[in-house]
Amino acid sequence: MTAPPYKQLEQEFRRVHAFRGAISLLRWDAAVMMPRGSADIRGEQLAALETEQHQLLTQPKITRLIDRAEANTPALDDWQIANLREMRRLRDLAIATPVSLISRLAVAVARAEAAWLKARADNSFAVFAPHLEEILTLVRDKALLLGQALSLSPYDALISEFNPGVTGQDIDAAFKQLSRWLPGLVRDALAQQETRPVLPLSGKFPTAKQRPLAIEVMKAFGFPFDTGRLDESEHPFCEGVPGDVRVTTRFVPGDAFYGLLSAIHETGHALYEVGLPSQWRTQPVGRDRGMALHESQSLFLEMLIGRSRAFAHWVQPLMVRHLGVSGPEWAPDNLYAHLTRVRRSLVRVEADEVTYPLHILLRYELEKRLVSGTLAVKDLPEAWNSGMEQRFGMRPRNDLEGCLQDIHWAWGAFGYFPSYALGAMIASQLAEVLREDVPDFEEQVARGEFAAVAGWLREHVHAQGSRFTIQELMQEASGKPLSATALLRHLQARYLEGTPSSAAA
Amino acid sequence: MTAPPYKQLEQEFRRVHAFRGAISLLRWDAAVMMPRGSADIRGEQLAALETEQHQLLTQPKITRLIDRAEANTPALDDWQIANLREMRRLRDLAIATPVSLISRLAVAVARAEAAWLKARADNSFAVFAPHLEEILTLVRDKALLLGQALSLSPYDALISEFNPGVTGQDIDAAFKQLSRWLPGLVRDALAQQETRPVLPLSGKFPTAKQRPLAIEVMKAFGFPFDTGRLDESEHPFCEGVPGDVRVTTRFVPGDAFYGLLSAIHETGHALYEVGLPSQWRTQPVGRDRGMALHESQSLFLEMLIGRSRAFAHWVQPLMVRHLGVSGPEWAPDNLYAHLTRVRRSLVRVEADEVTYPLHILLRYELEKRLVSGTLAVKDLPEAWNSGMEQRFGMRPRNDLEGCLQDIHWAWGAFGYFPSYALGAMIASQLAEVLREDVPDFEEQVARGEFAAVAGWLREHVHAQGSRFTIQELMQEASGKPLSATALLRHLQARYLEGTPSSAAA
Repeated sequence: MTAPPYKQLEQEFRRVHAFRGAISLLRWDAAVMMPRGSADIRGEQLAALETEQHQLLTQPKITRLIDRAEANTPALDDWQIANLREMRRLRDLAIATPVSLISRLAVAVARAEAAWLKARADNSFAVFAPHLEEILTLVRDKALLLGQALSLSPYDALISEFNPGVTGQDIDAAFKQLSRWLPGLVRDALAQQETRPVLPLSGKFPTAKQRPLAIEVMKAFGFPFDTGRLDESEHPFCEGVPGDVRVTTRFVPGDAFYGLLSAIHETGHALYEVGLPSQWRTQPVGRDRGMALHESQSLFLEMLIGRSRAFAHWVQPLMVRHLGVSGPEWAPDNLYAHLTRVRRSLVRVEADEVTYPLHILLRYELEKRLVSGTLAVKDLPEAWNSGMEQRFGMRPRNDLEGCLQDIHWAWGAFGYFPSYALGAMIASQLAEVLREDVPDFEEQVARGEFAAVAGWLREHVHAQGSRFTIQELMQEASGKPLSATALLRHLQARYLEGTPSSAAA
Repeated sequence: MTAPPYKQLEQEFRRVHAFRGAISLLRWDAAVMMPRGSADIRGEQLAALETEQHQLLTQPKITRLIDRAEANTPALDDWQIANLREMRRLRDLAIATPVSLISRLAVAVARAEAAWLKARADNSFAVFAPHLEEILTLVRDKALLLGQALSLSPYDALISEFNPGVTGQDIDAAFKQLSRWLPGLVRDALAQQETRPVLPLSGKFPTAKQRPLAIEVMKAFGFPFDTGRLDESEHPFCEGVPGDVRVTTRFVPGDAFYGLLSAIHETGHALYEVGLPSQWRTQPVGRDRGMALHESQSLFLEMLIGRSRAFAHWVQPLMVRHLGVSGPEWAPDNLYAHLTRVRRSLVRVEADEVTYPLHILLRYELEKRLVSGTLAVKDLPEAWNSGMEQRFGMRPRNDLEGCLQDIHWAWGAFGYFPSYALGAMIASQLAEVLREDVPDFEEQVARGEFAAVAGWLREHVHAQGSRFTIQELMQEASGKPLSATALLRHLQARYLEGTPSSAAA
């Protein structure tokens, strides 16, 4: 007897899941363990596995089974229906992007990435420009194909790969709000900050001392070291699958916070993965609900907890013990001042919590114009620099500090940048409800007790997997649609302490 | 225009190769990096990739293309013809072993492995016996199916999985020779050894000191650290593919040699992989020629070089420098005495070079009888113990020292054990010719110069890939068919120095 179509689909997607896990491990290894000379070999392996995964999704059998299962949804429960919807989405995405386009894009990305590195080494945008052109041509093809398949505009189709269900219109509304209030907030925060002196934190902190500190903090947050690892890599990241989750950080000898906060950030990503519904572990509905929500979980831990006054109080004795430091500059209040220091910077990855979204607004505006063709690649440097001047009152001295600073476009990842700012918005919006449900939130953090917070996030976010759209999930978890209001309120409260709220109007 | 059948096959096997590499990396990670709690997840990933690899080989398209390519061999050169032969062999092996049998065996092996661990913990063969029965039933099915497909007897079919082209008859002949001469050789070596006192090597050598020593020695042998790694694991092994080769060792604090010699052994495996013909890297003919030849390369480095007097002279100052040791016990002659110490032991993995093959003879005899059914599982312990008494004059006090010591049978790896002794025979046979071609072999080793030796092995063994059968390769490289004569001559020369040769008659 043959199993019903839906059950057969679950079986097929178990294979897809196993491939995802293998691909993720190969990526982790490439960034953390692989010998330098083995990149080509790894490229072949990843291409073979990704092609295979694509073929698993596009085989006619899958389409036939989905059609048949969709014709009989009364036989399915809510989770199964959501799972079937996600199967359909993955199948549609795969069908819409032919292997030939994916492999042309992969080749172009490999070239563009090398050109981007060379352009940075030579400080020459001209080296990168023709490759960005090529990437854009292919990305536009992909956006058109995806858009047709998903009935979305081309740029919305690109967004939907990273954040299904989110449109440019949603982002426009939220970013308009940020754009209206943030510049004033930055100005006021900088002014207020000048009245509070900060003692510098100096010293050399070897990895051998920073690592045990990071591990102790990660354990307090509930990172599962029995089914996860912490390693080091050039750029911190989180890879793996629930059941084998791998985060990295980078320990900077002269900076007591960078490695720790990166580890906390990645722990936020890891806890999301770990908290996904285990009974749906191998199925599409058991996956995360996109990059914005993922980023919200990392930012919740890094920004809302890791840069709070309560956290500074809790972590201070741990830093004293592990790093062997002492003196007034290591007092909790001075640590807090460092954790919340605002500074206008030309470089996104060096930005603080307040100015960070402004960097995203610029990239969002420019990438939409690049994709639509209303901004030519050759005009990108000038558009970038004048955008920075307008938003930050500072002009990059060269393209290294300007449009050559991020690798995302070389990777063909257009539509990704908004996730960072959306993630910050989501985190703040969730935090407002969490504070109602866990009224002694701050006292718990000050005692290093994170179980209630982690439990809340697990219940309201992680355990939902991809059962709901992100809008449904936000409505369910916070009672409100997604907006920038809570983020602005949070920044106001933290950075303009004692000043009456205006942004949250 | 469609590519010719042979060219299409090369394309298909490139995918197979990429899967092999990914599978190998997943295995390496499981043994070296993976968190303990992630074994089930990894099992799913490996099962999915192995099933996929099996399906790539058994798709009707492959059979059709092989048939068509075989009908037009005049269009192919020698390497291509050999490649086509190897494609056929892999396809035949895959077709003969249905996925259902492979997955039943995988499940039984997982259970048997756990039962073997428990049986060892409880010192109870009864715990393991029913699982060994189950494994044997499945292995016999597999042996029959493979034998039919390859026109071989069932046990020969099992051997051929590990050493294609080698038959039980070949092994019988060689093992008879070993069985005739080795017991006397062991007795004489032990008697001669008693006349030479050895100073004990004591001390604690932390990994931090042993690792740089191992790395310096591996570099001297030519291990490519730009496309390879050295790590640590419970059992030393070599995984990976040419271009990304990964070896492990285990550093024992109280033993200055174990970790080093294991690293040298695995470097021998690695150099074989690295030296395979690079233009055939992704093709079946570019693979190693089976486990016996693989083992010959690791034993060549470990035994013929790593336990030689010349090596002891070269490595002595390195040990002094890295381990910070001094005193007469660290003199080269005393190190050599340790490296060549003979001792009757009940446990294979603790055996020296001279007694080691006797352990293999016992296992070979017993596993043939287990597969054919002439030895019942319940009678295995007694058969083992009396076999040991007969060969070593020692009787295991329990099954931990007896038939529960090796995991191979729990893994279903019947037909594997002979590879170890065949490897030693091959290594010695190659060494005799190498000494003719590189007359100052020993002086070079004493100076730490391994380029000529490595170059010889690469040319005569590694670079041949799977172009020839192992018998052809031995005839080509050594001018003689494979036999135990050279091994016996080597043991005689090293362990009965000054005694006139008798074994090599």
